[in-house]
Amino acid sequence: MVVMGIDPGFAHTGFGVVRLEGNRLAAVDGGVIEAPPGEPPEQRLARIHSSVAELMRWHEPESVALEDLYFGKNVRSAIGVGQARGVAMLAAAESGARCFDYTPQAVKMAVCGHGGADKRQVQQMVSSLLRLPEPPKSDHAADALAVAICHAGHVRPRPMASGVAATSGLGHHRAVGQAGAG
Amino acid sequence: MVVMGIDPGFAHTGFGVVRLEGNRLAAVDGGVIEAPPGEPPEQRLARIHSSVAELMRWHEPESVALEDLYFGKNVRSAIGVGQARGVAMLAAAESGARCFDYTPQAVKMAVCGHGGADKRQVQQMVSSLLRLPEPPKSDHAADALAVAICHAGHVRPRPMASGVAATSGLGHHRAVGQAGAG
Repeated sequence: MVVMGIDPGFAHTGFGVVRLEGNRLAAVDGGVIEAPPGEPPEQRLARIHSSVAELMRWHEPESVALEDLYFGKNVRSAIGVGQARGVAMLAAAESGARCFDYTPQAVKMAVCGHGGADKRQVQQMVSSLLRLPEPPKSDHAADALAVAICHAGHVRPRPMASGVAATSGLGHHRAVGQAGAG
Repeated sequence: MVVMGIDPGFAHTGFGVVRLEGNRLAAVDGGVIEAPPGEPPEQRLARIHSSVAELMRWHEPESVALEDLYFGKNVRSAIGVGQARGVAMLAAAESGARCFDYTPQAVKMAVCGHGGADKRQVQQMVSSLLRLPEPPKSDHAADALAVAICHAGHVRPRPMASGVAATSGLGHHRAVGQAGAG
């Protein structure tokens, strides 16, 4: 089973793809889609959409996992996050994948064992659980991998922290938006 | 020049299309796209996207006008509005239209002459400015027509309240989502 986690944002959308084989969890891909602020908003959304759509075609995940809500955001930034989230979910729907929401607390609980973990702890535990050669450089990629791990943990019988292994590294971070996916 | 106004919402997305010929403003279409709450969120977004895309192909507007921000919303509902807004803006981008934002105050000022007008006043002035046989039944359609009128007023030389006329009625409200546009 392949799961894509997405951490949507208007300027930076993180993505992380994990594969669950039996009770083994492997990192497949991860990185950040960048939507340059100089472009009109609708073009930035088109870039996010086409980049996520390309990743969906590439990895063919059955499920897309997203964080439910960003507390601490104001309404203006929530609209921006919502717009990016909307086009990412659309790309999922177009490829036949289902979307699943998890609260930030549920994600931290699944990855770190407690709901109050900070960014750094999430980054380190993602790296450890997926046996990455180094922690993801981007917070957005780490958060996307974390929510993908959280979803994978909800669909497999054994608890998250045991039996995980990586078959491929995640040392690089593809900027899909910049790589000509748009 | 053809302008499409959109009032995005997760359950109900209003749309209104106006045509500007010289200094004459005509109503072309208006209604509500419904996304039934029983469906998965990503499918509801796909329905909104395909319905707006169909309207874009039908009317070929050069510009899409949207209200900038919904004050008084909380972060959760702002995420929902943002998601609908994102897929609507994507449909605009895919058809080559530009998107324009207006604050609720600017829209009320353009349509009613003062920024503090209420829903009923907006509905009545939209009907009067476009010489509709009756006011739009839906608040969402009325708000979408209002932001389209606001944008049209910003691109033509003469003030909004003079010289307006409708060449076609708006008595019906198409539920594009229900009419099999998806």
